[in-house]
Amino acid sequence: MATVKLTLDEARDLAFRCLKANGCDDDNAAASADNMARAERDGCASHGLFRLPWHVSSLKSGKVNGKARPRAERLAPGVIKVHGDCGFAPLGHKVGRAPLIEAARENGIAALALVDIYHIAALWPEIEILAMEGLAALACTASHPYVAPAGGKKPLFGTNPIGFAWPRAKKPPLVFDQASAAMARGEIQIAARDGHKVPEGAGIDAEGNPTTDPNKILEGAQLGFGGYKGASLAMMVELLAGPLIGDLLSIESLAADEGAKAAPRGGELIIALDPARFGDPQGFLAHGEKLFEAILAQEGTRLPGARRYENREKTPETGIAIPQSLHDTIMGLMPPA
Amino acid sequence: MATVKLTLDEARDLAFRCLKANGCDDDNAAASADNMARAERDGCASHGLFRLPWHVSSLKSGKVNGKARPRAERLAPGVIKVHGDCGFAPLGHKVGRAPLIEAARENGIAALALVDIYHIAALWPEIEILAMEGLAALACTASHPYVAPAGGKKPLFGTNPIGFAWPRAKKPPLVFDQASAAMARGEIQIAARDGHKVPEGAGIDAEGNPTTDPNKILEGAQLGFGGYKGASLAMMVELLAGPLIGDLLSIESLAADEGAKAAPRGGELIIALDPARFGDPQGFLAHGEKLFEAILAQEGTRLPGARRYENREKTPETGIAIPQSLHDTIMGLMPPA
Repeated sequence: MATVKLTLDEARDLAFRCLKANGCDDDNAAASADNMARAERDGCASHGLFRLPWHVSSLKSGKVNGKARPRAERLAPGVIKVHGDCGFAPLGHKVGRAPLIEAARENGIAALALVDIYHIAALWPEIEILAMEGLAALACTASHPYVAPAGGKKPLFGTNPIGFAWPRAKKPPLVFDQASAAMARGEIQIAARDGHKVPEGAGIDAEGNPTTDPNKILEGAQLGFGGYKGASLAMMVELLAGPLIGDLLSIESLAADEGAKAAPRGGELIIALDPARFGDPQGFLAHGEKLFEAILAQEGTRLPGARRYENREKTPETGIAIPQSLHDTIMGLMPPA
Repeated sequence: MATVKLTLDEARDLAFRCLKANGCDDDNAAASADNMARAERDGCASHGLFRLPWHVSSLKSGKVNGKARPRAERLAPGVIKVHGDCGFAPLGHKVGRAPLIEAARENGIAALALVDIYHIAALWPEIEILAMEGLAALACTASHPYVAPAGGKKPLFGTNPIGFAWPRAKKPPLVFDQASAAMARGEIQIAARDGHKVPEGAGIDAEGNPTTDPNKILEGAQLGFGGYKGASLAMMVELLAGPLIGDLLSIESLAADEGAKAAPRGGELIIALDPARFGDPQGFLAHGEKLFEAILAQEGTRLPGARRYENREKTPETGIAIPQSLHDTIMGLMPPA
């Protein structure tokens, strides 16, 4: 596959210019471009520049507000709400971060409810930052109906990722970010683009039959990971990122899209816990390390996020490579320089 | 299989008398007996009287304090700690419930950190009660090393269940309670007792080879549900129910047992969220129902907990049946009437 090599700065700049050329102001373009560049830095192609054309088509649809001015409001001592103003999520995170951290430190636990946002990035960036402040954090968001409920055949839940972050002393946080679906939507889309099959259990075709063809799954439904248990988690995410915070279910988000094929509008819940307020302020960091050491003492194991952190060490030197076809698409979305 | 029929009152009374005869005071015996009777009422044999002999051996080992006096302490506006005094968990829940509910209503979100407890019941009883108060709730607890980390071969994590409850108007709450392991420990033990095989993916033998023999899994290791993703959740539970709240990891809990084969000592984290403080106080209940209706509109689906609620309707009339062998064992643990 022909590729185009870019430095991380070039990748960020390409995304920034492309978003600016398609309706974003500086703040919104910078927040989303930085998020995509962080994904590329960590080797997460499916959340990197691969997502840029979808950002652009979402802006062009008129659904996403490229000039959003998110604002934070404290609904209760432990609850911060960010009104996203229908922009992409990263600027909302930036606005909500400081009030969430403050509330978590004051109360020991606090929640950030982001509403009216378009979240098509990974979850790890927003929780990794919280763990770098010494907090543990959980996050989840819904999307559009992609995943069938347990026993059902039609898409109903989003892929509904759950992210978790735990602080470490002198090391990057322990972070995982995993779809409640057996596979992330982006991974299935990339398999379809590249003509690869996907593992069994990833999804069913439009008639409800198991299939390993990513195109048939995109027409049918994805499945929860580990069967009904993943579907239970996906249902929980719908409730926490929807009714709890007054935002849309995945089925409502699709209806609100009105066929525009924009990014899914919806909400996100982030829960931040301050271990310093929980009973072992001096010991919790070393205690967590004891668990990680026991995991790594077993041959064949590694910690979630380890591959991302390895890539993070390398890409500032090596740069990244994106498919030529993606680069062409992106260049076609911008006026000639 | 020969069985003994009992009314729910008889089941509760049997458990109460047996716990009393083996070192519990009235409060501790009543809380745990009630919990086991609720499991039997809902058709959850693996958390019902099946667990009574393990309660007794744990008391006899001298590890579990049958006369525990749990006490609640507010560590932060949103954090309640219950010192369990090394008793079984249900009395600790009783002590922590009112302060947790109060803190959740005041702050919008609050956490209950139970430490120094022996939790060998299901999680749904303590979160169902919170949802009946109008709160959403999450709970998790660790145990002893039963589950291998992703890529590993040796037990390290507990089965580490995660429970979630959501309030419903004029209906019992939506509740799920599922092990991060592919199967609950109790289900594997019952399969071993009854000579059944278990599904593939449930575990590996002592050499790390996949097996469907429950006895070999009990000597080897269980696996997370859906592969590495379930293992990630199990790791999260270790951190939240251990280092976060200053209690034991599953590996530490086994070491603390010192070969007594008592119930696992450890901690539990419960997070309660008050939807009335989150931005849609009037609409959240109806909004949740919209999701449940969409799930049930698909043929072949049902809501988590539905079977328990069906059994709950029936058992007050029909009573329950426990294996004759279990009844004999229990009777052997008590002085003759």
